[in-house]
Amino acid sequence: MGQSVELICVGNELLIGKTLNTNAQWLAKRITTLGLTTRRVTVVGDEIDEISSAIQEAIQRSPSFILTTGGLGPTFDDKTLEGLAKALGRRTEVNEEALKMVKEKYLSYAQEGRMEMAELTPPRVKMAKLPEGAKPLPNPVGTAPAVVIEHEKVTIIALPGVPSEMKSIFDESVASVMKQAARDVTFFEASIETTKVMESEMAPVIDKVMQNNPYVYIKSHPKGIERVPRIEFHLSTTAKDASTARAHVCNALIQLTELIQEKGGKIKSVKSET
Amino acid sequence: MGQSVELICVGNELLIGKTLNTNAQWLAKRITTLGLTTRRVTVVGDEIDEISSAIQEAIQRSPSFILTTGGLGPTFDDKTLEGLAKALGRRTEVNEEALKMVKEKYLSYAQEGRMEMAELTPPRVKMAKLPEGAKPLPNPVGTAPAVVIEHEKVTIIALPGVPSEMKSIFDESVASVMKQAARDVTFFEASIETTKVMESEMAPVIDKVMQNNPYVYIKSHPKGIERVPRIEFHLSTTAKDASTARAHVCNALIQLTELIQEKGGKIKSVKSET
Repeated sequence: MGQSVELICVGNELLIGKTLNTNAQWLAKRITTLGLTTRRVTVVGDEIDEISSAIQEAIQRSPSFILTTGGLGPTFDDKTLEGLAKALGRRTEVNEEALKMVKEKYLSYAQEGRMEMAELTPPRVKMAKLPEGAKPLPNPVGTAPAVVIEHEKVTIIALPGVPSEMKSIFDESVASVMKQAARDVTFFEASIETTKVMESEMAPVIDKVMQNNPYVYIKSHPKGIERVPRIEFHLSTTAKDASTARAHVCNALIQLTELIQEKGGKIKSVKSET
Repeated sequence: MGQSVELICVGNELLIGKTLNTNAQWLAKRITTLGLTTRRVTVVGDEIDEISSAIQEAIQRSPSFILTTGGLGPTFDDKTLEGLAKALGRRTEVNEEALKMVKEKYLSYAQEGRMEMAELTPPRVKMAKLPEGAKPLPNPVGTAPAVVIEHEKVTIIALPGVPSEMKSIFDESVASVMKQAARDVTFFEASIETTKVMESEMAPVIDKVMQNNPYVYIKSHPKGIERVPRIEFHLSTTAKDASTARAHVCNALIQLTELIQEKGGKIKSVKSET
């Protein structure tokens, strides 16, 4: 198993079902592609104690990275940095580098015509109040900087909740660090869609193929209803290089396809990365 | 605060970003509408120890309900019931009522022509292996029964991961129990979409309206980018009856709308439940 990551998504909107957590899926996919493993996703509300205990619990499981999303903005309910500071037993303080980032952002808005934008009001300064020892990461899209802090061998990175900002900071400042930590572990996946076999019939078949292919993880996803069965089989692996990963998955895929057809199943489609 | 709920979503497909966790959003929305509060969502992979520790940690926070999704099917990687049994220090055993449900389901498939469906193979019996003391809930759509178990004042309900099955069991067997537990707490929400004001300008305005309306929670969601600001303000409350909840939100909504306009903002739309 490679380097592990935990995601902590902060926001009441996620807990009342107003917002679909596309951030977690996007990050999980990118993290997997980079060769790391997401071990857990935790969603908590906008409360300092909830954020703090979720971070502390994650730290105790010793992942390589903890990524948080949400709660970095200017309003009262943006509490992630306070929660993070509490979890680490640190105070928050205005970080000069972060303040400079926020200031320059609003100055650029002001230069476009709205002079009141130049003012560093308390809600704007709030976005530069980081836990002691943290460093800001530039936000190319919005105003609140992201934050990185090292603690007991865990790299904790706080990202904004607005998807465009989160993605942009991840790609610009986070992906390369994670890629390096993963040390060239490659993920490869493929899937087969079938009809005319039921999941319960395929359970021993999956066991057999996984026994023959110990590096490949196979999971069945029923897509239809059992009486009109449509199953997707998802095969995945990680390996030190791309061609090994691909070879492992291909071997398992061929065996599985043959066995599905022996049981009377029809292959509807086979998909893999190109 | 009303009765609280924790969701534990089980599945590697969620942790590699293959699947978007629409189950969590759907459940969170239904739970909120029923008058209960979702306190936390935890996503873990298909490992007994991960499932077990996530359930144990949730139990320690003493919610009224823990709902799990996923991991009830016939294949090797369906491990939720084993994880649940481990968390509670119980064994799993074939539950006669659950076995009858599974048997009747496959018999009905067999009667439609495929006689091999009548056989109770080990993967099919597996779906009836519940933790001691658990009860099965009928699955109107698929084959794996859902499971309910009471433990230290927490009601734990294990639902399938296939959305159509999960929703159908929730509506048929879970919603009424939760509604009763909520004892007529009603949730009400509304939202305002604005342009021409920035989130950082609105921070003190939100503080003021929330001080004047202590029962209403207001959260701002930036939708555009800060230089072309578009903000959604989401107002929500819970109260003993629907008209009180509606009155609380309406008061706050009017105050907030006035203050946004005073700051030069434009109201694009106001939405609430009918």
